[in-house]
Amino acid sequence: MLVNHQHYRTIWVHEDRLSCQKTVAIIDQMQLPFDFVIVNITSLEQMIHAIKTMQVRGAPLIGAAAAYGLALCVQKNADNVAIHQAAAALIQSRPTAVNLQWAVARMMAVLLKAAESERNGLAWLEASQICDEDVAMNRVIGQHGLLIIREAAIQKASYHKAYGQKLNFNHTQTDQDVVNILTHCNAGWLATVDGGTALAPIYAAHDAGINVHVWVDETRPRNQGASLTAWELAQHGVPHTVISDNAGGHLMQHGQVDMVMVGADRVTATGDVCNKIGTYLKALAAFDNTVNGQRIPFYAVVPSPTIDWTIKNGLDEIEIEMRHADELAWMRGRLANGEIAHVNILPLNTKVANPAFDVTPARLVTGILTEHGLFSPAHLAKLQAVLQGH
Amino acid sequence: MLVNHQHYRTIWVHEDRLSCQKTVAIIDQMQLPFDFVIVNITSLEQMIHAIKTMQVRGAPLIGAAAAYGLALCVQKNADNVAIHQAAAALIQSRPTAVNLQWAVARMMAVLLKAAESERNGLAWLEASQICDEDVAMNRVIGQHGLLIIREAAIQKASYHKAYGQKLNFNHTQTDQDVVNILTHCNAGWLATVDGGTALAPIYAAHDAGINVHVWVDETRPRNQGASLTAWELAQHGVPHTVISDNAGGHLMQHGQVDMVMVGADRVTATGDVCNKIGTYLKALAAFDNTVNGQRIPFYAVVPSPTIDWTIKNGLDEIEIEMRHADELAWMRGRLANGEIAHVNILPLNTKVANPAFDVTPARLVTGILTEHGLFSPAHLAKLQAVLQGH
Repeated sequence: MLVNHQHYRTIWVHEDRLSCQKTVAIIDQMQLPFDFVIVNITSLEQMIHAIKTMQVRGAPLIGAAAAYGLALCVQKNADNVAIHQAAAALIQSRPTAVNLQWAVARMMAVLLKAAESERNGLAWLEASQICDEDVAMNRVIGQHGLLIIREAAIQKASYHKAYGQKLNFNHTQTDQDVVNILTHCNAGWLATVDGGTALAPIYAAHDAGINVHVWVDETRPRNQGASLTAWELAQHGVPHTVISDNAGGHLMQHGQVDMVMVGADRVTATGDVCNKIGTYLKALAAFDNTVNGQRIPFYAVVPSPTIDWTIKNGLDEIEIEMRHADELAWMRGRLANGEIAHVNILPLNTKVANPAFDVTPARLVTGILTEHGLFSPAHLAKLQAVLQGH
Repeated sequence: MLVNHQHYRTIWVHEDRLSCQKTVAIIDQMQLPFDFVIVNITSLEQMIHAIKTMQVRGAPLIGAAAAYGLALCVQKNADNVAIHQAAAALIQSRPTAVNLQWAVARMMAVLLKAAESERNGLAWLEASQICDEDVAMNRVIGQHGLLIIREAAIQKASYHKAYGQKLNFNHTQTDQDVVNILTHCNAGWLATVDGGTALAPIYAAHDAGINVHVWVDETRPRNQGASLTAWELAQHGVPHTVISDNAGGHLMQHGQVDMVMVGADRVTATGDVCNKIGTYLKALAAFDNTVNGQRIPFYAVVPSPTIDWTIKNGLDEIEIEMRHADELAWMRGRLANGEIAHVNILPLNTKVANPAFDVTPARLVTGILTEHGLFSPAHLAKLQAVLQGH
């Protein structure tokens, strides 16, 4: 996608012409939205650090980053011990997103059956294929999602033509031809190699001339909505408004949200959606409210590798990462003089709990939107059959 | 309550011995938790400014502050035009909390029937009575709430004795004799003249030797939980943990919340609860989860003047204050060097919407806890009868 009118992916390879040594470039997402910084990753250890500190984050991008982490390892040492150790270290770097495990398993399957001398070439090739496939899947997801948003625009217009707009002295009425989509965290192109998951349909709809407007949840404690989603939507010119994570329910009560679209770090075979902490609260609110004469739809938008077919019960079986208290205590922003600074918002010695994800039960999920189309949780087995080639 | 082991109210009167002129002292809540600053308010205009900028905030305290605002007006000019203008300006200073309107109406009833020469003395007397009654009501609320918490502690212990603790690899088990109470925003003594509303039962239980632990919602965008609730609980020695507003649902899904206790800015005659934005999402989550074999109870804890008997439908009839974008964009905190600074967390030119309150429908409310005891929304008319002396 575009940054200052120039096209970027979130991760790409540099090759030194003389030495033929490869390094991996990433956008340091910790520096956004204030600074656009590209970091060159030269070793497995640096890649693990980038994943742990969330310089790269977002389930699909973590998968791609892990694949390149293995390639960086193999470039130095391609023996079985080294790549097994690398795989284990990568899998432990973030526990919740399944894409990481998926990408590592796919890389390992390729590497372990090849001779040591062939592994370096194969590793870089497979990692780049994982990236290209992610981009391609997201493009198709965007096209499927475009149809959903177009349908919602038509439905909204006809509903308001039939029933008129409910008057409400508290709230400015949204234009009847605008589709308001609420999203949580960042599932845009920054969370993927390119194109985005939950934002892919929004970009596609915007590009197709549909009036979309995005409610961007700030997404505490790391503010990925306020810092990443708002930034990338602005770069692409998509109308959006940042709200506190607390505000979405109120907006839904007052007809201001036409649908919810979020990404996911893992989706179970039964359609439970594990995503950024707070997603469950938005799903509850969508389920509790109606818009345009129907329940507000809640979509998890994911490439199929995000689905963990081995898990049936998301609440009991998915490990939820507990992250450091500092993520909640310290806020990064611009001082009035333009300098970037960190401030601690808590009284000294305050105890903090910081679970990073929650699980939205399938009963609250309208559909899982994938590169193969939209599936209700009850029909997710059909997608599995498609993936298995049945 | 205690600040550095010394007792304070949130608002009190100073009288100059020579001039007999009175001024009103307040704790500047904008400076907490970093600085404990007392501000002397000498005029109606200053009091309106203090209310608007939330140097004083919290429904009961706003009522008391408005009463003293009228007294400050009357001290300078006691004629009908002046006090009517003062009343109108005070009511407009914050639109959502009903206590402000209630206190102004009560002051006006006293002032308008008195001779101009008597109004100054009566105004200060009535305002101080409003304050003393708030303190007394909160003390009684605390005692009623103590019974609820004690009952929950007994129920939790017997439930776990009967059924054992559900094992869960994701979560540290909370001790079985600790009652975990989630609260949103600040409804502690800082939101009242003294004693608190939602925190009154918690202080009473703690003082009575019950092991309580409070999950403190950070409460974006103004962070009243992180800055005020955490601060006052720490001053009193009550165990607590700050969480992002997004985390409560996840904690409830995993048995970590035994009840929710919040204050309110207005409660309707039907039991709809208007409180800080995001309260509705916690009520939905409490309703969606069980603990100790029952649905997680959700209590709104309010002195009876917070109930607006003229309103039946909170969603349609309560005006929700829209506050400035800067509240979400700018965060106040401590730099690493200890200095206090403000940082802007948003990309430049980002649009923000900032509704300050939401309405939790009565169907999600277990009970309204008042100085006259606990009433389910369906039985709130009984409270009205008690208040009317039937």
